[in-house]
Amino acid sequence: MSAYQNLEERFRRIRDLENALGILDWDHQTMMPAAAGPGRAEAMATLEVLKHEQLSDPRVADWLDAAEEPAAIAGLDAWQQANLREMRRRHTHDTAVPADLIAADTRAVSASELTWRGARRDDDFAALLPALKEVLRLRREIAAAKAARLGLAPYDALLDGYEPGGRAARIDDLFDDLAAFLPDFTRAVLDRQARGPDVLAINGPFPVDTQRGLGLTLMEKAGFDFSRGRLDVSAHPFCGGADDDVRLTTRYDEDDFTSCTMAVLHETGHALYEQGRPRDWLAQPVGDARGMALHESQSLIVEMQAGRSPQFMAFLAPLMRETFSGSGPAWEPDNLRRLYTRVERGLIRVDADEVTYPGHIILRYRLERAMLAGDLALEDLPGAWNDGMEELVGVRPPNDRLGCLQDVHWPAGAWGYFPTYTVGAMTAAQLFEAACREVPELIPGLGRGDFGPLVGWLRRQVHARGSLLSTDELLTAVTGRPLDATVFKDHLRTRYLERD
Amino acid sequence: MSAYQNLEERFRRIRDLENALGILDWDHQTMMPAAAGPGRAEAMATLEVLKHEQLSDPRVADWLDAAEEPAAIAGLDAWQQANLREMRRRHTHDTAVPADLIAADTRAVSASELTWRGARRDDDFAALLPALKEVLRLRREIAAAKAARLGLAPYDALLDGYEPGGRAARIDDLFDDLAAFLPDFTRAVLDRQARGPDVLAINGPFPVDTQRGLGLTLMEKAGFDFSRGRLDVSAHPFCGGADDDVRLTTRYDEDDFTSCTMAVLHETGHALYEQGRPRDWLAQPVGDARGMALHESQSLIVEMQAGRSPQFMAFLAPLMRETFSGSGPAWEPDNLRRLYTRVERGLIRVDADEVTYPGHIILRYRLERAMLAGDLALEDLPGAWNDGMEELVGVRPPNDRLGCLQDVHWPAGAWGYFPTYTVGAMTAAQLFEAACREVPELIPGLGRGDFGPLVGWLRRQVHARGSLLSTDELLTAVTGRPLDATVFKDHLRTRYLERD
Repeated sequence: MSAYQNLEERFRRIRDLENALGILDWDHQTMMPAAAGPGRAEAMATLEVLKHEQLSDPRVADWLDAAEEPAAIAGLDAWQQANLREMRRRHTHDTAVPADLIAADTRAVSASELTWRGARRDDDFAALLPALKEVLRLRREIAAAKAARLGLAPYDALLDGYEPGGRAARIDDLFDDLAAFLPDFTRAVLDRQARGPDVLAINGPFPVDTQRGLGLTLMEKAGFDFSRGRLDVSAHPFCGGADDDVRLTTRYDEDDFTSCTMAVLHETGHALYEQGRPRDWLAQPVGDARGMALHESQSLIVEMQAGRSPQFMAFLAPLMRETFSGSGPAWEPDNLRRLYTRVERGLIRVDADEVTYPGHIILRYRLERAMLAGDLALEDLPGAWNDGMEELVGVRPPNDRLGCLQDVHWPAGAWGYFPTYTVGAMTAAQLFEAACREVPELIPGLGRGDFGPLVGWLRRQVHARGSLLSTDELLTAVTGRPLDATVFKDHLRTRYLERD
Repeated sequence: MSAYQNLEERFRRIRDLENALGILDWDHQTMMPAAAGPGRAEAMATLEVLKHEQLSDPRVADWLDAAEEPAAIAGLDAWQQANLREMRRRHTHDTAVPADLIAADTRAVSASELTWRGARRDDDFAALLPALKEVLRLRREIAAAKAARLGLAPYDALLDGYEPGGRAARIDDLFDDLAAFLPDFTRAVLDRQARGPDVLAINGPFPVDTQRGLGLTLMEKAGFDFSRGRLDVSAHPFCGGADDDVRLTTRYDEDDFTSCTMAVLHETGHALYEQGRPRDWLAQPVGDARGMALHESQSLIVEMQAGRSPQFMAFLAPLMRETFSGSGPAWEPDNLRRLYTRVERGLIRVDADEVTYPGHIILRYRLERAMLAGDLALEDLPGAWNDGMEELVGVRPPNDRLGCLQDVHWPAGAWGYFPTYTVGAMTAAQLFEAACREVPELIPGLGRGDFGPLVGWLRRQVHARGSLLSTDELLTAVTGRPLDATVFKDHLRTRYLERD
């Protein structure tokens, strides 16, 4: 076997471990009985250790070196070459951090997540502080270790783990552009909304089974393949699972079906990306989704760009009315559309609308950079958070539970992840605009509840490409240029200032 | 770390892999979407390979040798010494077979199981023959390899994998005793049954949700800990999962709740054994259930000995009547008991009653020994099966679908497993008799639907001992002597010839 073939076999084995972990994590969040937690954590930690051992095996480094010899590379086709590049990338990230640092970090994160749950419930930031300090300390060490190997700044080294090729300098430009645009824009939207028609509430209860049925119908319309996936319930919706086994989840609120419906569409967007990855490369690094920003773009195209479009609303309103046996003006498409595009300055990120969401993200991005660089002491986080919320979203949290304690990301060690949400939203707008230009049938299709034209285009242009191209290359190939904020801002203007 | 401590750590890691496999297998049988099968098989095969690598690591052999030095053993307590013995046992079994033979066997079994499904459906033994021959050929090689290492006869080497210490010479004695007893006894029971009152049918439909509710109630009464386990649905009921996460399954027939109810009690018996294993040793070999015969005894004590006792029937009948809103004489305890202890010469093992079941097992045991020894050619299996059924059960299968194609065990490579079913039934009788003698509250408890006194005794005497003792030692400690057929025969006589 050639060095490259050995690598494919080794990464196949690593994927098997990842697939096992994906199902175990899904089970953990959906099915597992309460007292099984410690044993499950132990089993999953062991699979992670074995995965690390498979990747850090000295032979893998030798195979990578041998496969990257010019003579060896010349014998590989474009997909194989890209696969080799992605293998190297994963190897560098994974072996940059010493095993004992990984182990210390795993323990610290586990303890800090647990502490966070109680601290959030009790609105007690001081209780979280020691655990969070330890996570940040280890995060700095990990960032330094990766930075040295990758030749990047520490924050970029963490960001690169979620968003390959992602750089803070680029995100600063994009976010500064948005941050300058949003305050006046949000005011204009809220003024206009206040002058517009009242939004009528839709009152329940809405039985869980009926909501689930509607969710399944929408997943089917969006092209989800149920022979290779499922829909279940968890406390926090997610899309996970394994190759050819995409598990997505939602949660149901009997008093409100509207958020669940959109949450299902959101996770379905993620799921379609997973189900559309290149079949010949499904279990190899080059067959993976390109990065977290592009992943988020796929969920937001389905949920925000298509799912809340006036055309789809015209289809969805009567379907919802029929499903829940509703009647009256609240069920009219225009009212439903207004309900689904209502803008409000709120305290909680996950409840935020399309217009105010970027403010939440820009705040977190700026804060996590400052904390990692040592420019913001953790003790000062609550104050900085509240000031930032006032500046970027326009509301001041009355306490930390509704402020800097609301998200699990930092206690869970996910520093460098937040910006991908809003980069994803911008990417979604730019991709959707290109799709609409190229596929005349797309918007009329949505009016009939038919996602086919949209999803067909996404499969060809995004999903089936896996990690063959970089995110920039892909966006340039598909939309004609790298990401900028123009289309996203245009989209917001059109949706929130030009329609009634 | 001492050699022994290294071993504990290594076996902890192996257990983590087994726990992961347990949940993945449960998911495979209960939740997994259809097209995910090949990927799941691949992932599980990789975990099995990693497990084998962990055990066959040359350091493990060194640690075992070092830990078995008299000076080292002297420093271990009784549980640690037993744990070391069980580690050696597993190491010997696992490393006796060369890796390429294991791999060939895994492929052959996988192909043969798949072929078996079609062959059974089409009643086409000839279609299965080539695949089954290959499985048998490899089984002989595996048996020879294990026999050489264990110093056992080939069949005993396979049997020992399911039933540590189990030997064919012993089973021959037990089964010959039963085979001599059963024909006349069965005739007597059937005669008596024919002269007795008619059994009234209970007609459905019985909604699945209601059946599930009854199953959960019975599990709770039996002492199942739902914080460490679940009940779900699968095509074939089983009890699996992981440490502190026992997953049991059943299937529902809307026309008949009686079989499901007993199936749930049966699997609950297995589950109680798993949940009752010694907590301090849960993840080590000495904490495992002792063997398949003892495991089956625990399910049969709950289902057959206690669950079909007249006392429990007197409790169960009104509960069932209330649950399904039934009325009339069919719901009387005596009728229900007769329904649940009806004897019939049937063709299908899994549908067989307590009296005719051993005939099915003795047949399979004799046939699999003959096939492994080369005394019975696979081509002649259907004829030998049908002759044996006539002799041992008293009916002749009209075709192979209802004959030698009915069980998956041989196509799945499980040679040496069958005898544990009936050894388990005999063990159940001997243990239950001892329990009743020692715990006066046991039978009155069952009359109130209270399994507490029974299960408390089982936990102390069986579950909490894990694999500390051999099966013989455990039975002798608990019942005063090793297993024989006496109590089982007495139990059958009492239940089937002395009550109306």
